[in-house]
Amino acid sequence: MRNTFGHLFTLTTFGESHGEAVGGVIDGMPPGIVIDKDFVQHELNRRRPGQSDITTNRQEHDVVSFLSGIFEGKSTGAPIAFMVENTNQHTKDYESLKNLYRPSHADYTYQQKYGCRDYRGGGRTSARITLSRCVAGALAKLVLQKHGIQIQAYVSQVGQIALQQDYRLYNLDKTEENAVRCPDEEKAKEMEALIRQTKLDGNTIGGVVTCVIKGCPVGLGEPEFGKLHAQLGAAMLSINAAKGFEYGEGFACATQRGSEMNDSFSMKNGNIHTKTNHSGGILGGISNGEDIYFRVAFKPVATLLQSQQTVDVAGSEVTYKAQGRHDSCVVPRAVPIVEAMAAMVLLDSWMLHQAILR
Amino acid sequence: MRNTFGHLFTLTTFGESHGEAVGGVIDGMPPGIVIDKDFVQHELNRRRPGQSDITTNRQEHDVVSFLSGIFEGKSTGAPIAFMVENTNQHTKDYESLKNLYRPSHADYTYQQKYGCRDYRGGGRTSARITLSRCVAGALAKLVLQKHGIQIQAYVSQVGQIALQQDYRLYNLDKTEENAVRCPDEEKAKEMEALIRQTKLDGNTIGGVVTCVIKGCPVGLGEPEFGKLHAQLGAAMLSINAAKGFEYGEGFACATQRGSEMNDSFSMKNGNIHTKTNHSGGILGGISNGEDIYFRVAFKPVATLLQSQQTVDVAGSEVTYKAQGRHDSCVVPRAVPIVEAMAAMVLLDSWMLHQAILR
Amino acid sequence: MRNTFGHLFTLTTFGESHGEAVGGVIDGMPPGIVIDKDFVQHELNRRRPGQSDITTNRQEHDVVSFLSGIFEGKSTGAPIAFMVENTNQHTKDYESLKNLYRPSHADYTYQQKYGCRDYRGGGRTSARITLSRCVAGALAKLVLQKHGIQIQAYVSQVGQIALQQDYRLYNLDKTEENAVRCPDEEKAKEMEALIRQTKLDGNTIGGVVTCVIKGCPVGLGEPEFGKLHAQLGAAMLSINAAKGFEYGEGFACATQRGSEMNDSFSMKNGNIHTKTNHSGGILGGISNGEDIYFRVAFKPVATLLQSQQTVDVAGSEVTYKAQGRHDSCVVPRAVPIVEAMAAMVLLDSWMLHQAILR
Amino acid sequence: MRNTFGHLFTLTTFGESHGEAVGGVIDGMPPGIVIDKDFVQHELNRRRPGQSDITTNRQEHDVVSFLSGIFEGKSTGAPIAFMVENTNQHTKDYESLKNLYRPSHADYTYQQKYGCRDYRGGGRTSARITLSRCVAGALAKLVLQKHGIQIQAYVSQVGQIALQQDYRLYNLDKTEENAVRCPDEEKAKEMEALIRQTKLDGNTIGGVVTCVIKGCPVGLGEPEFGKLHAQLGAAMLSINAAKGFEYGEGFACATQRGSEMNDSFSMKNGNIHTKTNHSGGILGGISNGEDIYFRVAFKPVATLLQSQQTVDVAGSEVTYKAQGRHDSCVVPRAVPIVEAMAAMVLLDSWMLHQAILR
Repeated sequence: MRNTFGHLFTLTTFGESHGEAVGGVIDGMPPGIVIDKDFVQHELNRRRPGQSDITTNRQEHDVVSFLSGIFEGKSTGAPIAFMVENTNQHTKDYESLKNLYRPSHADYTYQQKYGCRDYRGGGRTSARITLSRCVAGALAKLVLQKHGIQIQAYVSQVGQIALQQDYRLYNLDKTEENAVRCPDEEKAKEMEALIRQTKLDGNTIGGVVTCVIKGCPVGLGEPEFGKLHAQLGAAMLSINAAKGFEYGEGFACATQRGSEMNDSFSMKNGNIHTKTNHSGGILGGISNGEDIYFRVAFKPVATLLQSQQTVDVAGSEVTYKAQGRHDSCVVPRAVPIVEAMAAMVLLDSWMLHQAILR
Repeated sequence: MRNTFGHLFTLTTFGESHGEAVGGVIDGMPPGIVIDKDFVQHELNRRRPGQSDITTNRQEHDVVSFLSGIFEGKSTGAPIAFMVENTNQHTKDYESLKNLYRPSHADYTYQQKYGCRDYRGGGRTSARITLSRCVAGALAKLVLQKHGIQIQAYVSQVGQIALQQDYRLYNLDKTEENAVRCPDEEKAKEMEALIRQTKLDGNTIGGVVTCVIKGCPVGLGEPEFGKLHAQLGAAMLSINAAKGFEYGEGFACATQRGSEMNDSFSMKNGNIHTKTNHSGGILGGISNGEDIYFRVAFKPVATLLQSQQTVDVAGSEVTYKAQGRHDSCVVPRAVPIVEAMAAMVLLDSWMLHQAILR
Repeated sequence: MRNTFGHLFTLTTFGESHGEAVGGVIDGMPPGIVIDKDFVQHELNRRRPGQSDITTNRQEHDVVSFLSGIFEGKSTGAPIAFMVENTNQHTKDYESLKNLYRPSHADYTYQQKYGCRDYRGGGRTSARITLSRCVAGALAKLVLQKHGIQIQAYVSQVGQIALQQDYRLYNLDKTEENAVRCPDEEKAKEMEALIRQTKLDGNTIGGVVTCVIKGCPVGLGEPEFGKLHAQLGAAMLSINAAKGFEYGEGFACATQRGSEMNDSFSMKNGNIHTKTNHSGGILGGISNGEDIYFRVAFKPVATLLQSQQTVDVAGSEVTYKAQGRHDSCVVPRAVPIVEAMAAMVLLDSWMLHQAILR
Repeated sequence: MRNTFGHLFTLTTFGESHGEAVGGVIDGMPPGIVIDKDFVQHELNRRRPGQSDITTNRQEHDVVSFLSGIFEGKSTGAPIAFMVENTNQHTKDYESLKNLYRPSHADYTYQQKYGCRDYRGGGRTSARITLSRCVAGALAKLVLQKHGIQIQAYVSQVGQIALQQDYRLYNLDKTEENAVRCPDEEKAKEMEALIRQTKLDGNTIGGVVTCVIKGCPVGLGEPEFGKLHAQLGAAMLSINAAKGFEYGEGFACATQRGSEMNDSFSMKNGNIHTKTNHSGGILGGISNGEDIYFRVAFKPVATLLQSQQTVDVAGSEVTYKAQGRHDSCVVPRAVPIVEAMAAMVLLDSWMLHQAILR
């Protein structure tokens, strides 16, 4: 249950790593939007493994096809279903996982919750599932772009190598110029080296993605429980491997005084703005027109090319060592997913805000 | 819109700081539960201001009354409505706020979103609104306790003074023994001193609340978008002044290797357990039977007893200095609210899990 | 569970016949609406028993009080909570019902579903609960009236005495001029006589309410599952004692040919209209700008002043005869409730329609 | 928006008559259920056109394929996506509809609501869309059958030819033995003759489907707004061409006295039962263990092989005459759709009922 995200702009996802297909149904797409399929495919490609030697070498050639909701090149307001076929269904490869609970994977909890599980490649819990989010996020971006809203995420930390927190110090358009998706060229090189070394060690490493939203109108977000940052937090925490979310000053505000944290209002070109933006563009759960920014922490990938202790389904303690090609660091590929989820939250929030009759 | 929290166990809240009453309607309360009204009132009292000199001196004598859903001392399965009357409606005190947008408050965003606002004492955005959560959380706790689930939150950081992260090092039953709600007596004294000094400075300070859930059964949480930690995150981020949420190792996992972070499975008394619990009791969005723990960051209170620059509704820049009694640090009073939200999420998730027909 | 109605304009209800109070929380009320409390009280009074000798003689003096969401006489966009205190709590009167399952009442099903029930005066199943709907419907009407939408319901059948189906033959403004709420004076007298006689017999009788909505804009309703008539149907069928719903030609269309039923489009004053309106103002689940009309069937009240066979909670067969004052025919008092539900559905549908970003 | 049906067992549909595919995503399917694909295909075939000369001659060979949520022949608890490819995409045939608003079709309302429409074969409003419901209903039936719940619908009226209302007088297992799906052989022949004649006239005719649910446990349905009959009503009214819904005595109860309508409780084999079942198996919105039965009215198909007056998109009055093969009476094919919707409502309601923690 609860494979649907959103309230008015909704995505319902389906698919397992090694089933027939992975995809989703988008309901609430505004009608009359030109569906730029190249853009959608491009967004989908951004999360693809095998793009460089620092991500997994597994090659996935995922092509999205649309099944409904588009007519004469435009959205009609009807549900848009899409899917990506799974071409790589070597189920045999995964027979070894059938009787095993891999450490820090969801094998055990799925088995306990549902009484069964699709063990092929992680089944429903595979990171492959996130491609549905990229497609839906791309469609949401098509709408937001029309209204001048821009969403840009980047890798701000891999292991100990971290950017300074303030996104304003970087040219975010440089993010896609390197494989690690970090706008600071020097740090990017360090991060890549660290990921390569980690991979050689048969190990994995965590990181942080920062996301910035520019051009958001004032008024999005629905107190008391649909606060904009609560929606963003729920969205980000639903991404595989996410362990934390903070917006504005985030956890750093624990050490601050109110006199440091507060953002004074002032006038700029006849409009109300804040002089600083420690709040992260949201006050009382409602966007205030300033940049929205937040950070998402991702744990190191659980699949290691090292021996690990675990138990099998019969309760015997066994040793497990993964085979094959796996990501050593998930954050570069998490960047487009973070953007996609942010786009969906914003569009959904905007539609909710639009609903107010005046 | 969206003043309802939860899916099956739901709380719909109402009320403003200086309206007639603050309260809510709980739908989905399991029937046949003995409603211990003293316990509910006790939980409500825990968030009350004026309990010590380190919180606000404002005295609120909030008494909860129940309007429905309870018969012969037990829940009936019908909605439980409750309210706390506002006895302190000195509206005049707040006339000065009518034409002002206070820094880092929601005055401006509410005005822009709704075209009007109840400016008396923060209106709908007042921290007073959170008392509804304490009542609903107390009812949820009554159910969870029957099933052996315990929820304990405490203050783990105020300004620079922080506990070590691991909750297992503390006796959490000592939490309520001091005003700052910190289980480490020495740190508690330091925190209290810091808060007192901050108050003397007319300033405020941020902090962190940690929460631990023990006895949670395996299987709660609904992937893909209702992951247990995503629900917890959304719940916590909906609390006034919350800026960040992390569970398990949280942001610290960004610097970790998979070999450090992964939790090996092993057998204990014939049951599957993990040797470590870096994951925080949740795998793939589903509880795994280990302790669930998470941390919530709170910003310093926005109301300062100092002059601040801001603008008024006409767009003129003005100076504003708050009067009266205000909290200097919100985290001690956030403790029961964090527990309440956790209780609601757990009960809701358990009911969703129960719904699976077998 | 599911004591909330609507998606964006929502009503969450609470209360039992003999509890502390009956009321609700409205979420999604558009901000800036002048709340005419006299109008709301007037709408509430319309459902009051004891207004004439053909309804129950029980006198209820229900006064609605508002607890939140209104400031300076206008809605603020925050939840509007309201309640009506129960002044008539003679619980003793109902001790006799404690151990009994009354025929065609919900005593038995509530007991089986929840394992307990509030047996005082029907508890949660009492018709008294519907007063919350009248209040919320009155608020919805305040919004709709601003936009020129009018909702008028009337009694079109009591027992065998039935109006011709076409509402256009009557002056609906005459509806409130008689106690039975029938716009045809002659039929009204016959209906009243029938109800009086039924009452003398210690019996009850069923009837039908017809409702007409004028001025509805084109475009309301959300296919595929939120079709406007499906929402109206669900709303009406949720009213106590409702047994059927039909719109447009309804069940009569079973005997019709397409050539009789179809409504031709034509131009009128430069706008598209239909020459006839057999469809009832809705095509494909979306309003087409013509009058919306529908009919709701209500069963005879289950409480009889006659002896009936039934069983008690121990499973013994017993004889039961109700005491006191009861309605003999529910339809006159159902009129304002039907209107209220229609108003809520329309406003909710309109807000959903507004949500479409363009 | 609102292309999702249900709360815990949900169906999200997609597709247009002449798009790539029609299908859906089922979320909440209980895990561990053997998915009998032949049964599902059989249920889907029941709604297929071209099964006899009394339905449309159009041949559709619809084969359902499953994309997810099934592993080793069983449901896993993950979403089950399915689709039926559209093989018959002769778009040219429908160019003539591009500029036309067909009478009593949804062309006009879709155009006004969304600003565009997929005009090919009715697009999203085509009856073809209902095949998704048959698939989801078949899966729900697989669960319900395990628990002894049976759902049987049949045609009870075509034009003036109507069965007596009481379903107990017929052997419902005979329903599928004739093309019109009426369990009374004689009446079936009359109905077929009437439909044939209507077809020869280039006309269409309405009818009624009756549905009976046996073996439903006591306790399903969620007052106040999720009453079981309100859910059933909303489900049925969402089917294309449905104009009315009634359960139990339905509209007939308007003419009845309480003493006729009430169902006395009595003991049967140690269990509580009602002697009669005028209520239709539901009391206070909750199933009482007796048979649930209801009736759904369907209008005559709007597409006629006769000339009709209408307007085009430019507002000119024109004459329109449909070409090709069309149903003359929708009710025989509505039978499996009514059953499917009933199955979904029951399963959803049962899951909600299961959710109650005890």
